[in-house]
Amino acid sequence: MTDKHVYFFGKDSTEGDRGMKDILGGKGANLAEMAGIGLPVPPGFTVSTDVCISFSKLGNKIPPEVEEEILRNLKKLEDVSQQKFGGKDNPLLVSVRSGAKFSMPGMMDTVLNLGLNDTTLDALVEKSSNRRFALDCYRRLIHMFGDVVLGISKKKFEGILKKKKGEKKVALDHELSEKALEELISDYKDLIKTETGKGFPQDVKEQLLMSISAVFESWNNPRAVTYRRLNHIPDDLGTAVNVQQMVFGNIGEDSATGVGFTRSPATGDKELYGEYLFNAQGEDVVAGIRTPSPLKTLEKKMSSVYTELKEITTNLEKHYQDIQDFEFTVQEGKLYMLQTRNGKRTGLAAVKIAVDMVEEGLVSKENALLMVEPDALNQLLHPVFDAAEKGKHEVLASGLAASPGAAAGQVVFTAEEAVAWAKEGKKVILVREETSPDDIHGMSAAQGILTATGGMTSHAAVVGRQMGKPAVVGCGDVKPDEEHKSFQVGKSKYEEGDWISIDGALGEVLDGEIPTQPSEIIQVVRGEKKPEESKIYQYFTKFLSWADEVRKLGVRANADTPEDASVALAFGAEGIGLARTEHMFFEKERLPFMKEMILSQTEQERRSALDNLLPFQKEDFYGLFKAMKGHPVTIRTLDPPLHEFLPRKEDLMVELAELKASGSQDKKKIEELERLLERVKALSEFNPMLGHRGCRLGISYPEIIEMQATAIFEAVCQLAKEGEKVFPEIMVPLVGTQEELSNQRSIIQRVAEDVLKKNKVKVDYLIGTMIEIPRAAITADQIAEEAEFFSFGTNDLTQMVFGVSRDDGAEFLAHYITHGILKDNPFETVDTNGVGELMKWAVEKGRETRPDLKIGICGVHGGDPRSIFFCHKIGLNYVSCSAYQIPIARLAAAQVVLMERTNK
Amino acid sequence: MTDKHVYFFGKDSTEGDRGMKDILGGKGANLAEMAGIGLPVPPGFTVSTDVCISFSKLGNKIPPEVEEEILRNLKKLEDVSQQKFGGKDNPLLVSVRSGAKFSMPGMMDTVLNLGLNDTTLDALVEKSSNRRFALDCYRRLIHMFGDVVLGISKKKFEGILKKKKGEKKVALDHELSEKALEELISDYKDLIKTETGKGFPQDVKEQLLMSISAVFESWNNPRAVTYRRLNHIPDDLGTAVNVQQMVFGNIGEDSATGVGFTRSPATGDKELYGEYLFNAQGEDVVAGIRTPSPLKTLEKKMSSVYTELKEITTNLEKHYQDIQDFEFTVQEGKLYMLQTRNGKRTGLAAVKIAVDMVEEGLVSKENALLMVEPDALNQLLHPVFDAAEKGKHEVLASGLAASPGAAAGQVVFTAEEAVAWAKEGKKVILVREETSPDDIHGMSAAQGILTATGGMTSHAAVVGRQMGKPAVVGCGDVKPDEEHKSFQVGKSKYEEGDWISIDGALGEVLDGEIPTQPSEIIQVVRGEKKPEESKIYQYFTKFLSWADEVRKLGVRANADTPEDASVALAFGAEGIGLARTEHMFFEKERLPFMKEMILSQTEQERRSALDNLLPFQKEDFYGLFKAMKGHPVTIRTLDPPLHEFLPRKEDLMVELAELKASGSQDKKKIEELERLLERVKALSEFNPMLGHRGCRLGISYPEIIEMQATAIFEAVCQLAKEGEKVFPEIMVPLVGTQEELSNQRSIIQRVAEDVLKKNKVKVDYLIGTMIEIPRAAITADQIAEEAEFFSFGTNDLTQMVFGVSRDDGAEFLAHYITHGILKDNPFETVDTNGVGELMKWAVEKGRETRPDLKIGICGVHGGDPRSIFFCHKIGLNYVSCSAYQIPIARLAAAQVVLMERTNK
Repeated sequence: MTDKHVYFFGKDSTEGDRGMKDILGGKGANLAEMAGIGLPVPPGFTVSTDVCISFSKLGNKIPPEVEEEILRNLKKLEDVSQQKFGGKDNPLLVSVRSGAKFSMPGMMDTVLNLGLNDTTLDALVEKSSNRRFALDCYRRLIHMFGDVVLGISKKKFEGILKKKKGEKKVALDHELSEKALEELISDYKDLIKTETGKGFPQDVKEQLLMSISAVFESWNNPRAVTYRRLNHIPDDLGTAVNVQQMVFGNIGEDSATGVGFTRSPATGDKELYGEYLFNAQGEDVVAGIRTPSPLKTLEKKMSSVYTELKEITTNLEKHYQDIQDFEFTVQEGKLYMLQTRNGKRTGLAAVKIAVDMVEEGLVSKENALLMVEPDALNQLLHPVFDAAEKGKHEVLASGLAASPGAAAGQVVFTAEEAVAWAKEGKKVILVREETSPDDIHGMSAAQGILTATGGMTSHAAVVGRQMGKPAVVGCGDVKPDEEHKSFQVGKSKYEEGDWISIDGALGEVLDGEIPTQPSEIIQVVRGEKKPEESKIYQYFTKFLSWADEVRKLGVRANADTPEDASVALAFGAEGIGLARTEHMFFEKERLPFMKEMILSQTEQERRSALDNLLPFQKEDFYGLFKAMKGHPVTIRTLDPPLHEFLPRKEDLMVELAELKASGSQDKKKIEELERLLERVKALSEFNPMLGHRGCRLGISYPEIIEMQATAIFEAVCQLAKEGEKVFPEIMVPLVGTQEELSNQRSIIQRVAEDVLKKNKVKVDYLIGTMIEIPRAAITADQIAEEAEFFSFGTNDLTQMVFGVSRDDGAEFLAHYITHGILKDNPFETVDTNGVGELMKWAVEKGRETRPDLKIGICGVHGGDPRSIFFCHKIGLNYVSCSAYQIPIARLAAAQVVLMERTNK
Repeated sequence: MTDKHVYFFGKDSTEGDRGMKDILGGKGANLAEMAGIGLPVPPGFTVSTDVCISFSKLGNKIPPEVEEEILRNLKKLEDVSQQKFGGKDNPLLVSVRSGAKFSMPGMMDTVLNLGLNDTTLDALVEKSSNRRFALDCYRRLIHMFGDVVLGISKKKFEGILKKKKGEKKVALDHELSEKALEELISDYKDLIKTETGKGFPQDVKEQLLMSISAVFESWNNPRAVTYRRLNHIPDDLGTAVNVQQMVFGNIGEDSATGVGFTRSPATGDKELYGEYLFNAQGEDVVAGIRTPSPLKTLEKKMSSVYTELKEITTNLEKHYQDIQDFEFTVQEGKLYMLQTRNGKRTGLAAVKIAVDMVEEGLVSKENALLMVEPDALNQLLHPVFDAAEKGKHEVLASGLAASPGAAAGQVVFTAEEAVAWAKEGKKVILVREETSPDDIHGMSAAQGILTATGGMTSHAAVVGRQMGKPAVVGCGDVKPDEEHKSFQVGKSKYEEGDWISIDGALGEVLDGEIPTQPSEIIQVVRGEKKPEESKIYQYFTKFLSWADEVRKLGVRANADTPEDASVALAFGAEGIGLARTEHMFFEKERLPFMKEMILSQTEQERRSALDNLLPFQKEDFYGLFKAMKGHPVTIRTLDPPLHEFLPRKEDLMVELAELKASGSQDKKKIEELERLLERVKALSEFNPMLGHRGCRLGISYPEIIEMQATAIFEAVCQLAKEGEKVFPEIMVPLVGTQEELSNQRSIIQRVAEDVLKKNKVKVDYLIGTMIEIPRAAITADQIAEEAEFFSFGTNDLTQMVFGVSRDDGAEFLAHYITHGILKDNPFETVDTNGVGELMKWAVEKGRETRPDLKIGICGVHGGDPRSIFFCHKIGLNYVSCSAYQIPIARLAAAQVVLMERTNK
């Protein structure tokens, strides 16, 4: 803690500026900045954020030396304002407002009109010659102080107010007579006495210090703590407290108060945007009791004020080089600025504003890139509900907002039904307990996915995001009964075919059909709309082209089909970083061969089944390569355990038990089930995540890898002969030792050379590996002897480094995050301390062996901005993410470069 | 490859010595050593091991420059022996023998009598004046050459020989007449012609070079490769080849050949031990066609030879400072030494010899400690079958030799039955598909454990070793049918109560009851025999006391009960490194409370169930502390997932399905099962290993940890009041982040201070953590902020670093080891490259934060000698292993210190 804790602001004696957000908070720093550049800001002072921390440490007590400093500054404020706090004439009134480094709107507390008591009330009456106004201020003070500082339920005050309005037969607060206000004040005081045993404090310094304390305490109220968790704001920043001379928008009809934006935060359109109320104080605008008027109407009603406001805010936008969100008050015709800050905006607005400001010459391209949150780009891609339509529908339940976007459809319970219904042209929502890889086609056919279990990185969530499909997962209130094709939610039951809607951005499940439409950008990307017909698309691509000029990281897509690949390419992907070959085996006409392969007793039987799969795989790869037009395509060899392709053990056991217990005589069926069960049991594992999968399969059954390599290189040869460019990278999963990779590499290389030679084709290709087993990262120098590239599989790597299965860990990880044991979910953002440390080690070690080693990432983290920053910092060559996250990745990759520049 | 590849040995021109095993192999180095110190060794030369490697690289070809060098040395041998290779008179005959750095008995090939052909045969007849002898040599050569060099099945030669003996009506080879031998030679030559299309090579140099090649090739025969895998001998060492002038034990009745040991390799008794045959060549002694005579009988028959042999071998033992395993030949009354090496011996003999040699002043204590393989100590601890008795019983099947020792008992199929039968005084073998923690009491009651599935680190194996119980696991030929209480093996069926025997040292399952008895040492340790009554025990403790003088690592035991603790203490444990508290909950009278706790809906219900468990836990800890007499006791808080205490999901599903399908009307039962199933389903996990367990439970349910801490410190207080010393160390499992440990630590600390204060007791205690999650190792500097000690849980750490579940990985890990992808099973020996690298990092980082951090290991690796070496090298403070492995750990910990000294 430094020696100075209180910073004054006011025309000639301002001590802070906008660079001091760390200690003054956002509001305090901006008030100082505005005061410093000569704008009409009521004077005041800011108690710094570090006091908030020492306040907590002292058990919620203001340190005595700080109290002294506050009182010194209060004296100065009296001097500057030429008023006296608690003075019997010309009394000084102040507001006390929180203001942390990062804006946390509505999370913490505010008290207005401090300095009023029974004595100064009379002084204020005298000074303002407006008794009604003075009483209005006093009743507001007691109400807010009672609520915020004394912790008495707001509802009790509101109840009294409502009763009073009823008695007096008026509808609005400002219609209350002076008498009514006097009675109200008396009733409020009685309430405080009853609730706390003491009267409303008449000592104005006590009022002030209690209010400052209350604001500091509010830093740790549950709302604020939760908000910080969700927004990744550290707990140890603390809030500052701003004490500021009151100006009054409620002094009469030549007074007003309002809030506004310099541009539309919804659309980005360049127009003064906001609302105000005559004869009101700040909270009235937000409270919604009176309907405020649109800001432009002020032009007619208070022309000079409007002109001044317009001028000031235009200058503020220039000064801050960003859209401003401001608050103002007009007291008896004079304009005061009470707050300015960069405005929060939708993704659409963010992009438009950034581009417009560059074109207006207000900001550089680099700064424009830093004005848009990468994740906000998502909002431009997902279908949306019409807000008005949505309001008409009941919210049935809430789950995790796993994949944004809005979808409406008829409920179905199996992937097969989803496909069948979709074929008939119906829109469906696939509702399942959870999804698995064999639901892929059903998920693909559905408008959206709703699951009862699973977390943000569950199968449904990951695939949903990858497909750009809205998904609500882990929605425990929804209880699907697949057998009876219905689900229960609360007291309602939904049957197959009933309509529901889901909002993947909010995690909401709603009754009935709410109409949706794909976003314009998606329509363009899918070729359903021409680029020149969409302004949004033009903004979007212009903006991202600037990102491409700056970024150093390559951006690739995780894509398994030619369709995905085309979308990825349209979004700017520079290659495929992960094509999962196993998805190809779940398709209807292939699964039987896959099952045959798995149930084979001998290598020969297995080879014959594989021969049947070969043409399918070749076709898959041909399509992918062709779609990617010569960009590199990373194909991962078979990864999941074989039992994933067979029915579940317990289902078979139950079926068998039922069949037997029912006295069935169908011996053939029983025997068949028993044989299948035996194989399923033999393949079943206690911890499949740590079992026989990835390259371990390829080592046990080299013929599978031979088939896959053959399919890849036959497709390559066919395309080469057709004159197409192809650049395959074959990636071996789940490698833990150099010898494993060496084994798989030699098979792939042998097949590749054979096929290329036979076809007389020359093509460059790479063989590399996932780094997803901790041991591979630790021994990266050895692995790099065999690997021409690395790709971090951060999903599995995180599971193993933490020893946490993402499927099983959802519940206790949530508990960890609420209890502050983890700051972030490591399955969403790379845990830089643990997993990241290992990644850094692997990059360094790998490049010790092979300085030109190409290194990427293909876990879900490849689409997470903070993880992308980290990937850049440790020197990866590219990130790979779902096609729909490509724009995010392009922007994040540019931002990290710009942030590094400014930190230099 | 250096320039010199062939080293001569012979009285005055010996080029090597015993320090050159790396390049001359063991045999070659020892031949050179013996020749160098003037012993009667026939001269010869050794082709070095590096030639073996270049031979392989050249596609099984001797490099031309080496061939030249061989022929140069052959010339020298002719000069020294004054004989001529292929000479028409006085022909030189040689033997060609393999000899690698580490002895691989019987694994590679030998050819004798090289240099004979149709011409030199006559010369040998003339020189020896013994036609029968010369013919005998020739037929032996053709036989061995045909088998070893030309790859013709030995059986074909043996068939011809057998037929000839039949024709001639003789029983033994040396009874064959000259004529018969001539016919035999002719038949052998015909066989070679038929099999290879060429005659037996008459060019003696061709014979020699082909034989040398064959020996080099034999380095890579499957037998040899497997032997190296099993004995951890690197593949790239190669074998040397020894070419040596033949001396003949088969030249008449004044000639002989034999093998011997300077002491008994079985018991260690000090007596010349071995066998010999008159008129024979080396292989006859081993072949078992004629019964050789005990070596002592040679004293009467060849007195001066015996005296010379005794003198030479006594000197060799002194010279080599170890028991010698030697070969000799007597040719016409003259003694020749053909080989000497340190003898392999049983554990018993090893200890006795080491102690005796120190007391005889032959070796230092330090060298004595290096003479015993730590694992060999195991043999002294486990019950044994009488070999003769065992021979009478059929071997039914073989599995993994998981826990050594011999046991016989009646077959039972459940833990409950094991306990019940044992109570009636019956001996039982518990036969199960696999075991789980709730079988512990049954395993404890059984003589031995036999499972159909699971690997060397499966539950049955680990617990078996920890209990010192014989166990054969993963015995796939045994198919238990628990429902019908029987198991099938081959065509036989064993019912409950049938007798079988298992040999845990060999992995054998045998029919019937073979009598066993505990080893003497165990009897002493358990207090069933007095130390002074057991010589073996005295040897054992004396030997280990020397180890204690040298070692720097502490040695602790993993023990959960006072009984285990007492045994551990008797074996020299200096504390308990791991007491698992969960084992305490599986006992009959406690499990219901545990289940009640798990099925609780509220914290209050849970607390009430825990209140019932508290007195049990307190009693457990009281017993443990008391048994350990003031030594530190590390108690791990609850670790396994809660579902381990409940019935299995699929069992419940099947029971329910059967009940319903059978039309049961027992609604109450059905409802009860459904409720239980619901809870089991809620708790069930896809990957329990990565699920809700360890400190994650303690964070979700702090009341569990509170109960455990209360029990620990109440026990501590009680003992303190009784005047006993106690030193508890509380260990938190499965920690991955500093915050987790901080959370658990604060609970434990609070309870500890409360209980100690209430009881007015002062006791030192530590709070620390397992390091078993990779993330904990990576962030060890942060973890050490909260931890006063670390204990490596290398079982889990290995699982997660490799991404391999030890339960599921057994099959493919075995495949990996046979295919050379892994050298060792990482669940047996620390994978120093991967897991070990991370351990090193954790030690360094942990001590950066807390220089005096106490660090141990409590995974199964704590009892593995090579892992113990590693633990010493990275600076751990102690290892903790099962009580029965304490002697191994003490010895290994001493050996690594001594090895470091000699490497200085």
